[in-house]
Amino acid sequence: MRTYNVAILGATGAVGTRLVQQLEQSTIPVASVKLLASARSAGKKATFKGEEVTIEEATPEAFVGIDIVLASAGGSVSKRLLPEAVKRGAVCIDNTSAFRMDPEVPLVVPEVNPEQLKKHHGIIANPNCSTIQMVVALKPVFEKFGIEQVIVSTYQAASGAGQSALNEFFQESRDYLDDKEMSAEILPTASDKKHYPLAFNLLPQIDVFEDEGYTHEEWKMIHETKKILLNDMNATDLKVTATCVRVPVPISHGESVYVQVKDKKATAQDIRAAIAEGEGIVLQDDPSQQIYPQPLNAVGTRETYVGRIRPDQENAGAFNMWVVSDNLLKGAAWNTVEIAERLVSEDLVHPQ
Amino acid sequence: MRTYNVAILGATGAVGTRLVQQLEQSTIPVASVKLLASARSAGKKATFKGEEVTIEEATPEAFVGIDIVLASAGGSVSKRLLPEAVKRGAVCIDNTSAFRMDPEVPLVVPEVNPEQLKKHHGIIANPNCSTIQMVVALKPVFEKFGIEQVIVSTYQAASGAGQSALNEFFQESRDYLDDKEMSAEILPTASDKKHYPLAFNLLPQIDVFEDEGYTHEEWKMIHETKKILLNDMNATDLKVTATCVRVPVPISHGESVYVQVKDKKATAQDIRAAIAEGEGIVLQDDPSQQIYPQPLNAVGTRETYVGRIRPDQENAGAFNMWVVSDNLLKGAAWNTVEIAERLVSEDLVHPQ
Repeated sequence: MRTYNVAILGATGAVGTRLVQQLEQSTIPVASVKLLASARSAGKKATFKGEEVTIEEATPEAFVGIDIVLASAGGSVSKRLLPEAVKRGAVCIDNTSAFRMDPEVPLVVPEVNPEQLKKHHGIIANPNCSTIQMVVALKPVFEKFGIEQVIVSTYQAASGAGQSALNEFFQESRDYLDDKEMSAEILPTASDKKHYPLAFNLLPQIDVFEDEGYTHEEWKMIHETKKILLNDMNATDLKVTATCVRVPVPISHGESVYVQVKDKKATAQDIRAAIAEGEGIVLQDDPSQQIYPQPLNAVGTRETYVGRIRPDQENAGAFNMWVVSDNLLKGAAWNTVEIAERLVSEDLVHPQ
Repeated sequence: MRTYNVAILGATGAVGTRLVQQLEQSTIPVASVKLLASARSAGKKATFKGEEVTIEEATPEAFVGIDIVLASAGGSVSKRLLPEAVKRGAVCIDNTSAFRMDPEVPLVVPEVNPEQLKKHHGIIANPNCSTIQMVVALKPVFEKFGIEQVIVSTYQAASGAGQSALNEFFQESRDYLDDKEMSAEILPTASDKKHYPLAFNLLPQIDVFEDEGYTHEEWKMIHETKKILLNDMNATDLKVTATCVRVPVPISHGESVYVQVKDKKATAQDIRAAIAEGEGIVLQDDPSQQIYPQPLNAVGTRETYVGRIRPDQENAGAFNMWVVSDNLLKGAAWNTVEIAERLVSEDLVHPQ
C-alpha cells in the first residue's frame, strides 16, 4: 500500500489542532507527519496517534519529501509557502482564502464538486466555513430542482475568528457575568481598527468591509457559492446575497437560508426528501418533536444538519431552512482532510 | 390639566417593571398608579416616582376608576380581565397577543400607524417585539418606495421569553463557564414539551409550532406586519416571510431584513436617506468607521437602530439591512407607554 508523508502548516491554531485530530481519524495511510508553525512555536511538542512530534519552523525546505500539505496558517503564509511546497512535489490543500478565487485552483467541497479535484495543479482551496455548510445543504436541492436565488443570514461562532478570538470571547463572558468591564482587542476582526465585545452581543461584521458596504465574509459567501456550484465565481444564473453576523456561540455556525428554486412545483416535502438523501447531511426536521439543528449538538461532528424546512407561503418554489455545522470541522479541518482522503483514494496526489 | 389614573397589569415581570419605569419618564399627567399582579405577588411593594406602592391582586373590581390600563400579564389574563376594565370605563393597551388579530382592535406602532388609534373600542394591541422594530425601520421605505416583499431572519434576546427565561439563561451561562451541566426548564418556550439550553447555543424555535412548520412567532411577524402596514392581516400585495431564532443575548433583538421595494430605481443611498429621516430611528451605518447597530449599545434606549444597508447586487430594488432595538422598551414597554402618550395628547382616552 502506498503511504504518504503529510505536513500540517499552522498546526497550533483552532483549526490546526483539529487538522491533526481529523488526520489521525482519517483513512489516509500516513507514513510520517510533520507539524509546521511559526518560529515562535517551533520546538513545542504535540502528539500524533499517541507519539510525540516536535513542531518545526515552516520554511520552504521543510517541504522536501512531503506528499500532502494541509495548510491553515493564514493567507500570507499560504501565499508565500505553498508555491514552494508545490515546487518540491507536494499537493497542498489550503484552508485560507489566498487561492480560492484563482481560476486555476479548484475550490472543493467533496460532497458537492469532487470532479474539480482532477484539475488541480498542486493547490486545492478549501472554501470559507460559512460557504461550505450552505453548499452541502443546497447541493441536493440544486441538483433536483435548480436554484435561482439564495438569501442567507448567518449566525457565526467566535471560533471562526481563531483560537485567540474564542479565548477573548470566553473571558468577556466571565467578565460580564462578574459585573466587570469587558475588553475587546480582536473581534470583530483582528486587522480592523475598532474592537467590540461579542459576549452577550451581536457583531454584524465578519472580516473587513469592501465595496457597497458588504464585508469580505459576505463577498466570499456570494462568490465561493457560485464557483462551487457553477464553477464560475461571477455566474449570473444563480443569484446570491448574504448578511454575516458573529454571535456569542463558541463553535458551530447557524444559517438561515432562503432559497428560490427553478422548479416552481417543488413542495417542502420534495425539498425535505432531497435533503434527507444528500451526502454529508443529517436531516433534523420534526417540529412536532421540537427537532431542529442546534450548534451545541453539532460540536465535534463532521455532518451538516438541516431543519426548519418550510415553504414561503406566498412565493411558489421558495423555501426557508436552517443549517448548522461545526465550523472548525466540516467548515475547515474535516473538509480539508476529506479532500486529502479523496486525492488519496482517487490517486490524485501525484497526478501523471 | 386633565390627569389620569393608570393601572399596570403584570407589574412584576421583565416588561412590567419597565412599564413602571417608562410611565415614570412619560409625559402623561398621572393622577394615581395602581400596580396589579397575581394573588401570589399581591402585598409586595414597588415604587413609582420614589413613592411606595403596594401591589394589588388583579380583579375586575380593581379597575374601578382607572382611565388607562397598561397590560403585560400574559394572554389569558388579558382575555379575562381587559373586557372587565373596558366595561368599567378604562382604555387598555395590551402587550400580549390576545387581541392583536381582532379586526376591531387597532394594532399600533405610533411611528407607523398612529391613525388607527382613533378607531379603538377600549382595547389597543401592542405588536410583538420583533415586529415592532422591523416596521419602524420599514415605514419610511414603505412610504417612499413601496414594498413588495420582506424576508427576515431574527436574532432574538432571551428576555423576550420573560424574566424567568433571562434568569435561566444567565444561570446556564455561569454553569457552562464553570464546566457544569446546564439545565433548561423554560426555553425555547415554557409551554412546549422539551427544553434546551440557550447559553452558547442557538434555538431556532420561538413560541410553539403551527401550520407548515412555522412557529407562532414567525406567524406573528408575517401577519402583524401586514396588519400594521396595510391594515389587513392577510394582505396579499405585501409578501412577508420570517425565520425566528433565539440567540444567547440578554436584551435587544437583532434582525437581518431583506426588502424588495416597488420602485426599482431606488438606490441604497435613497433607502439610507429615507431611513435616516424615519421617526424613532437612529441610522448607524458607516462601514468605514465600523459603525453598525449592536444589542449591547441599544439596551435601555427607546430607539430603533438601522445599519448595514446594502443593495442586493443582483436584484434591482432589493436591499439588505440590520435592525436592532431594545425588545423590552421599543419592543414592549416603551411602545405601550408611547401609545398611552398619544391617546392622552390626542384626547382619545375617553372618546365621545
